[in-house]
Amino acid sequence: MVDSRGLTGARAVAGIDLGGTLVRMAFAACDGRIVAAARARMAALTSPDDVVRWVVGQVRRQGGPVRSVGIGAPGLIDVERRVLLHPPNLRGWRSVRLAAMLEEAVGCPVHLENDANLAALAELNRGAGRGCRNLVYVTWSTGVGGGLILDGRLFVGARGLAGEIGHLVAEPDGPLCGCGQRGCLEAICGGASIERLTGVSAKQVFSRAGEGDTEAAGVVRRAARAMGNALVTLTHLFDPDAIVIGGGVATSAWRLVQPTLAQVLNDSPFIQPDRRPALRRALLGPRTGQIGAVEWARIQMVSAA
Amino acid sequence: MVDSRGLTGARAVAGIDLGGTLVRMAFAACDGRIVAAARARMAALTSPDDVVRWVVGQVRRQGGPVRSVGIGAPGLIDVERRVLLHPPNLRGWRSVRLAAMLEEAVGCPVHLENDANLAALAELNRGAGRGCRNLVYVTWSTGVGGGLILDGRLFVGARGLAGEIGHLVAEPDGPLCGCGQRGCLEAICGGASIERLTGVSAKQVFSRAGEGDTEAAGVVRRAARAMGNALVTLTHLFDPDAIVIGGGVATSAWRLVQPTLAQVLNDSPFIQPDRRPALRRALLGPRTGQIGAVEWARIQMVSAA
Repeated sequence: MVDSRGLTGARAVAGIDLGGTLVRMAFAACDGRIVAAARARMAALTSPDDVVRWVVGQVRRQGGPVRSVGIGAPGLIDVERRVLLHPPNLRGWRSVRLAAMLEEAVGCPVHLENDANLAALAELNRGAGRGCRNLVYVTWSTGVGGGLILDGRLFVGARGLAGEIGHLVAEPDGPLCGCGQRGCLEAICGGASIERLTGVSAKQVFSRAGEGDTEAAGVVRRAARAMGNALVTLTHLFDPDAIVIGGGVATSAWRLVQPTLAQVLNDSPFIQPDRRPALRRALLGPRTGQIGAVEWARIQMVSAA
Repeated sequence: MVDSRGLTGARAVAGIDLGGTLVRMAFAACDGRIVAAARARMAALTSPDDVVRWVVGQVRRQGGPVRSVGIGAPGLIDVERRVLLHPPNLRGWRSVRLAAMLEEAVGCPVHLENDANLAALAELNRGAGRGCRNLVYVTWSTGVGGGLILDGRLFVGARGLAGEIGHLVAEPDGPLCGCGQRGCLEAICGGASIERLTGVSAKQVFSRAGEGDTEAAGVVRRAARAMGNALVTLTHLFDPDAIVIGGGVATSAWRLVQPTLAQVLNDSPFIQPDRRPALRRALLGPRTGQIGAVEWARIQMVSAA
């Protein structure tokens, strides 16, 4: 706050959301209040070096040094080595030492995490999960992923790979998943799987179901039933206060899937009403990633202090 | 340690394992070293009051006051109200305020927890899970249950009901479970379900399979495949260092089921070898419950200090 330009205090932390289409960046005060944001098309930033240069440019434009940066990225991350292993939708990005590259360029600690984990954190602190100590976040989109808040903290497991909800075995001997395993939740409800099954885009299937097309409605119901069963499994395993559903499906088709999800969950006889988690739609939309990255930067800064 | 009879220090904590057939009690030093143990048949202790009287008698016999008592019990526990809801195999025990009753009688804090959760803690501190920070414990017996050690601590969820591994949806539209839900893991692999399916006891099925009976071996393989798929799901969700399998099946039929469990886990293409949890047989046997209860008493004593 003693910074003569008044910027360091107000732009203490930054959060970056590295997506397949866009990279988004937000600058925030220590309390998480976002004061500036920027974005660029990934098509214009073809290499990791381009992304690093763009980030450095944004930090300069915002008036200088930040104290902590969080960055969310898709796919598996080697948390110990702080490396993006092989992110889907980022061609040519293999085993990129993104955190170390950014630290060198930006001059402050950079904290890399899986994007679905950071979305869970965003909804916990700023969205549909406020007030929860135990929260399961499910992202239901082209793929299916998730993030876990357990006892008030992001839980990432022994190697940073926990919360891979899309690959729980939903149907033994079910359809083959992109991961090579059979019957993954994602292979049944993911948008890409719905497209493979029906020959039209998942968006169209949901839109037709909304218009009363019986066949499309059947496809949606089957997907929602599988997701509902997964929510039952997640409830038995995590006993969460709430389950928050984000991703494209929650955004565009909540009205179509929510009744089936709630019904499957409510019909499970072992989950008594008083132990049923709240079922909520995510609130933060396309800015979830950058908000989660800001929150992650803040948490890491506090725990380092 | 200044106690004139030298007992208070050596018998600082006690752990009670309330089972359907036996109640077991152990006395331990502050470091968890067990110095004395006792047990009684539940058939001789028909009411909760009888159990409380027996426990008080054991404390007296061991020379007087203990500082912390842990107690593990089967079934659902209302952690907030510290009440046993309706333990299976304990007829007539409904909504028993066991922790409060014991506290009044014994004169020190009493900590009630689910028995599978305490078994996880026992294996973590004294058994097959030593050195782990993230451990999934599965008890595979007449029923299927579990306990979760996450980031080094017992995780029980928002209402104390996490880790109900037996009721994850293993097969949608699968066999009806005792809980009323279809396709629970327990409904496929639990000993009681195997008995219902085959008409002979699970013990006999495993024994015949061990002797080369093809039909029995098929039943065992099916159960082990379902359990293997559950281990895949648990790995995706928790990313544990190790999965420890306890309960009657692990004790008596490990040799029969381990190869299938390992194969299903190793065949999952998304679980790369370097992120595969260790698969271990539980080490502590029938004393698991009392050891876990002692560990719980110790942890609660430390966190209260």
